[in-house]
Amino acid sequence: MSIGKSIKRVDAFDKVTGRALYTDDMKLNNALIAKILHSTIANGRVKGIDITEALKLKGVVKIVTCFDVPDIKFPTAGHPYSLDPEHGDVADRKLLNERVRYYGDDIAAVVAKDSITAEKALKLIKVECEEYEPLLSIGDALKKTSVPIHEEYPDNILAHTSYEIGNFNEAIKEEGLKVFEGEFEISPVKHCHIENPISYAYAEGQKIVVVSSTQIPHIVRRIIGQALGLEWGKIRVIKPYIGGGFGNKQDALYEPLTAYLSQIVGGRCVKLDLSREEDFVNTRLRTAMKIKLKSYVRSNGRFVARELELYGNKGAYASHGHSVVSKAGHAIKQVYNDELATKGDIYSVFTNLPPSGAMRGYGIPQITFALESHVEDIARKLNLDSIEMRKLNAMPLGFVDNKIQCYSNGLFECIEKGKEYIEWDKKIKEYANQRGPIRKGVGMSMFSYATGVYPISLESAACRIVLNQDGSVQVQMGATEIGQGADTVFTQMVAEILDISTENVHIISAQDTDITPFDTGAYASRQSYVSGMAAKKAALEIKEKILDHGSFMIKIPKDNMDLRDNSIVIKETGEILVSLKEVALHALYNTEKSVHITAEATNQCKTNSFAFGVCFVDIEVDIPLGKIKVNKVINVHDCGKLLNPELAEAQVHGGMSMGLGFGLSEQILFNEKTGKMYNDNLLDYKLPTIMDTPPLEAQFVETYDITGPFGNKALGEPPAIPVAPAIRNAVLHATGVGFNMSPLTPQRLVEKFKEYNLI
Amino acid sequence: MSIGKSIKRVDAFDKVTGRALYTDDMKLNNALIAKILHSTIANGRVKGIDITEALKLKGVVKIVTCFDVPDIKFPTAGHPYSLDPEHGDVADRKLLNERVRYYGDDIAAVVAKDSITAEKALKLIKVECEEYEPLLSIGDALKKTSVPIHEEYPDNILAHTSYEIGNFNEAIKEEGLKVFEGEFEISPVKHCHIENPISYAYAEGQKIVVVSSTQIPHIVRRIIGQALGLEWGKIRVIKPYIGGGFGNKQDALYEPLTAYLSQIVGGRCVKLDLSREEDFVNTRLRTAMKIKLKSYVRSNGRFVARELELYGNKGAYASHGHSVVSKAGHAIKQVYNDELATKGDIYSVFTNLPPSGAMRGYGIPQITFALESHVEDIARKLNLDSIEMRKLNAMPLGFVDNKIQCYSNGLFECIEKGKEYIEWDKKIKEYANQRGPIRKGVGMSMFSYATGVYPISLESAACRIVLNQDGSVQVQMGATEIGQGADTVFTQMVAEILDISTENVHIISAQDTDITPFDTGAYASRQSYVSGMAAKKAALEIKEKILDHGSFMIKIPKDNMDLRDNSIVIKETGEILVSLKEVALHALYNTEKSVHITAEATNQCKTNSFAFGVCFVDIEVDIPLGKIKVNKVINVHDCGKLLNPELAEAQVHGGMSMGLGFGLSEQILFNEKTGKMYNDNLLDYKLPTIMDTPPLEAQFVETYDITGPFGNKALGEPPAIPVAPAIRNAVLHATGVGFNMSPLTPQRLVEKFKEYNLI
Repeated sequence: MSIGKSIKRVDAFDKVTGRALYTDDMKLNNALIAKILHSTIANGRVKGIDITEALKLKGVVKIVTCFDVPDIKFPTAGHPYSLDPEHGDVADRKLLNERVRYYGDDIAAVVAKDSITAEKALKLIKVECEEYEPLLSIGDALKKTSVPIHEEYPDNILAHTSYEIGNFNEAIKEEGLKVFEGEFEISPVKHCHIENPISYAYAEGQKIVVVSSTQIPHIVRRIIGQALGLEWGKIRVIKPYIGGGFGNKQDALYEPLTAYLSQIVGGRCVKLDLSREEDFVNTRLRTAMKIKLKSYVRSNGRFVARELELYGNKGAYASHGHSVVSKAGHAIKQVYNDELATKGDIYSVFTNLPPSGAMRGYGIPQITFALESHVEDIARKLNLDSIEMRKLNAMPLGFVDNKIQCYSNGLFECIEKGKEYIEWDKKIKEYANQRGPIRKGVGMSMFSYATGVYPISLESAACRIVLNQDGSVQVQMGATEIGQGADTVFTQMVAEILDISTENVHIISAQDTDITPFDTGAYASRQSYVSGMAAKKAALEIKEKILDHGSFMIKIPKDNMDLRDNSIVIKETGEILVSLKEVALHALYNTEKSVHITAEATNQCKTNSFAFGVCFVDIEVDIPLGKIKVNKVINVHDCGKLLNPELAEAQVHGGMSMGLGFGLSEQILFNEKTGKMYNDNLLDYKLPTIMDTPPLEAQFVETYDITGPFGNKALGEPPAIPVAPAIRNAVLHATGVGFNMSPLTPQRLVEKFKEYNLI
Repeated sequence: MSIGKSIKRVDAFDKVTGRALYTDDMKLNNALIAKILHSTIANGRVKGIDITEALKLKGVVKIVTCFDVPDIKFPTAGHPYSLDPEHGDVADRKLLNERVRYYGDDIAAVVAKDSITAEKALKLIKVECEEYEPLLSIGDALKKTSVPIHEEYPDNILAHTSYEIGNFNEAIKEEGLKVFEGEFEISPVKHCHIENPISYAYAEGQKIVVVSSTQIPHIVRRIIGQALGLEWGKIRVIKPYIGGGFGNKQDALYEPLTAYLSQIVGGRCVKLDLSREEDFVNTRLRTAMKIKLKSYVRSNGRFVARELELYGNKGAYASHGHSVVSKAGHAIKQVYNDELATKGDIYSVFTNLPPSGAMRGYGIPQITFALESHVEDIARKLNLDSIEMRKLNAMPLGFVDNKIQCYSNGLFECIEKGKEYIEWDKKIKEYANQRGPIRKGVGMSMFSYATGVYPISLESAACRIVLNQDGSVQVQMGATEIGQGADTVFTQMVAEILDISTENVHIISAQDTDITPFDTGAYASRQSYVSGMAAKKAALEIKEKILDHGSFMIKIPKDNMDLRDNSIVIKETGEILVSLKEVALHALYNTEKSVHITAEATNQCKTNSFAFGVCFVDIEVDIPLGKIKVNKVINVHDCGKLLNPELAEAQVHGGMSMGLGFGLSEQILFNEKTGKMYNDNLLDYKLPTIMDTPPLEAQFVETYDITGPFGNKALGEPPAIPVAPAIRNAVLHATGVGFNMSPLTPQRLVEKFKEYNLI
């Protein structure tokens, strides 16, 4: 049995030794190099571009400007295509944009024989622009302006949706309700994957081949088709190993441009490798949000009704559209539910900042920061135990929201484990009534997180398995390994079903849309749940075919046989009849009935399930320095059945590290006048290093979710969600000061502590 | 309809523009370079190798000698694996050989950072050998010697088989039979593909990946496994476009060594690119043969009985074993059959020459040269019209030999077309009784050729088809494009069944054993026949799935629908119901029943069929110069239904060119004492150039073979068969001198003409 075992990552050796092939390792010899010219204004229009001098530079092969590219607007979001045009993604940008919408927008591109020549050429291009007032905040964008960022959205509002569950106005009439309001502001942060976005493209027959560091090869293929006006079958996207994505590579970033640049140089290989600075400015950010919560609460802490007003800052382009903000807006009624009514108003607003898109958690880290701060504040004001108040309102087993049902719920046990590790009850007392410059506190937060995108979007995945002559199998998944360990758990799943050793499962890590079964890709923590079921189905199918051939070979009825430990055995007794290797050799090479044993299965997933988790922290705050030191931190997760405990632990460690950065130090900063990003690099942007990281404790509460292929549910994104609000609540515990913004940087702490006369 | 149309080669544009990727275009950056040290004796044993000085050279990464390699003997033949050990290929060589068996045998290998360093290192290696007398001819090899070439074969005979059909001794008692004997000697020739054998290998996870210019990726994978003692599932072989093979790349040549060299340098990428000289000496030759025919003939020309004694010169290693020689030995009873009896004695003999293996025609060009010369000589002596004599003895429709039945036979019509083009009857008279130094003649020859290897070996092939969102399909064949146009006809086959445009069929040209359906590869003219049937089956299967989904989508019974012109139509009326593109989009993206439409099918072929053809030539012989000028030459073929007439014509042109070289100028020469090859390069080896090539006329007689997927049968190898004997017979016609050896070089002609007092 393989499920539940901590087998080594199947890619561990290759990644550690440097053997693993990434996009840049694979590019063709003599690839041309492309570089992009970015705008140096945040809002305006290109009036003219003079490329005369640049073209004279030796080694420049081609220069293309926003005036040359196809007049096609295309969407970039990594969402499944929808047959319903109303449900489609917003097509709001061209390959290069004459209408400049943020500082750094793409206005021209150079293709040259090498990188230095391309850089030099960029400097020789002269651009003339008409400039408009940059709209750099949600507030500015919502003011009436004469020039909207996108003419289709005159109010700069991409979308405004609202919902009301129950009768809100009736509900709040209940006598004795206390009313609490909170306003929160979440800063934009950056994914900071190790490998910058990179792609190269070349022509092959009728096709354009694009090799790219992406989470979503099949979707990128479709988007290139849309952007270039090509039939999708004429595009081939290959995804090698990638150095992280975290949602940033869940957009088609520059693949359409790379494909286009190859097209205009006659199909030669063109490589476009973003710099770190470009990755910061020109890809996607986590959506900054302004969140207002108003809660009507009984004195025992029970939510009767809550009201949400949520504004997401989309930046200059729609990217994932309203989805991230909408998901955040709906989440408040899941982890907690109201006795009578909940209502929300949700806005996605365009501004002249770099576009925001998907990032690990997809809106939930932001809303959880607000919601868990808000709950903590209320409990404090009501003088309640905040954990008890949470439990009073928390999602019960069997809960249903928007067709998603809670089939398994380990949340309360997660809380108990967290409390125990952090010595909650003891510390709550111990840290009461502190004085002095350094004060300690404990804090916690919790969340629920849906697994996959059903019922909002299509959930479809496929897997193909091929039996080798030695009894091993190849597994081809449409789902993508992006560092999370997907290949390893798919390997375990197939080994489990066939009862063969995991060494005998060879997973094909790279996806190639020409040959790889279809899958929408790595996002929404969906792969082990949705794609894993495809792996299970394909494995069950090939198992039947193996037993069919075994029955033909050794003339024993199939129903009396089973697979066990790399052999066909007598089902009842386990006695070995024939090894899988012998069956495999016989299947291909017998001259009576030669057959190539393979299986392929599609899984359309029409379920979803809630995963849960908590974070507990024990911190100390140096008040004069405004510095928070995390002494202990634990995440406890209910992700259903653990497929691979060590991998799961590693997944949680990574998420906790992201959560620490999100809560403490990471924040994208812009020049308030020009909209130019200040800290577009890993020196100025404060990602936590190992020196900033306390020991990370990850624990689990195993449940079994009947909707998952092996009882499993989401774990990809959840670990990044609860850390920041737990820290914020611990600071409140330590100092009595509640911060309503992330991150809790020293500057912000010092300012606020002064305001509270703590300094 | 696509079958029968001369669509452009699907790879034409990429090959003409240089876009097509061959092995060397794809190697990894920083690949190490391997070079082989070859022996400078033809027979002996390595006693010691001193690599001390070579290892000191900067940039040398590793040197490995025959004393270091695994003690595993492996076979190299590109035959399907057999479950019957008796039917297996001969395993007679190691990766590097301590026992040296030909001048050039592989005794050590250097891996270095670049080519020049590797070459330098080779020169610094000191080798000490024990030398035995080289056995360079069949005669020498058959004499008793104290040291056999392979100790398992003390008489140097790899195999000796014999057959007798009918009662030979009884048959020859018939009164009035004339007896004719002929002895023929066929020189070895070389394939001369444009791209030399090249491969590179690197480690990936548990696997060794080998990219190679091969005709047989799935077989090469198995042989690497055997040679290295690895499970086959741990080997991945990728075959990109290749620059020709002609049977030479139907052996595992150096792929096992390349894989091993990568293994011993820790999985780094190692490339082994043979020089042209190595391709000549160290790969394979067409099997040289000595052929004795003795025929018992009635005065009307009818064969009553024939007797064959055939010796094939295997060279130093078995390679394809007895197969080539055996196939030649059995062919004499197919194209012609005897009234009463046929018998044959067939020997494959080891010598200390470079190994012979498969080459286009697989023994049939050699036996056809002998047989057609013999027939011509007999007719001449009996004063019969040689064509009428051939027709009297030729294979009739319904004929069966060794389970191969003649289901279609256009041979007689081929003869008529050939006669007409060459103006046979007129020229026969016109060229009678010539005098003077330059004399003209006409000659012809004919042949039959089986399609594929059934029933000798397994015939198994598979195909996978994937429906794209635009209604186009991807086709993955295990069968390999090796320049012959296989990809183009598979494209047509799939387009034909689905009734879509060939532009909407995207064939994946490269094979990758990890993901490509199984197929034994390109040889035996089998692909359009055996693998084509797999393409047809897979297309029929995906058609059913498309109609299934169409029926689900538009709620019309499947049986009332059909595919036509890229749409689903009403079967009876042809009225368009929905385009294939709409069905494809709906299948993937509808949220009710999302399905990834793909199909995969194995074809095990248990039939075979005879293809036929003739060659007619009109030549002039300059007797004092010994020079033959071909004025007109035509091949006429019955290959069943023509899949793509222009491609078929090109196939025939290529074969005719090979036939001209085989008949006139190509001959591998060895030093008679040392066994060193004299003309191991394209300057000294006389391949015909365009200056030597007359206009090539190719015509066809279309038949419909019920066993072929579209009525088609072999055309890959046949064109190379009949040209040489037709020329030989024309020389006989022109000069009265019958040459019993190929090729007919000026030197040989002059010597013989002197003997006949013509000079």
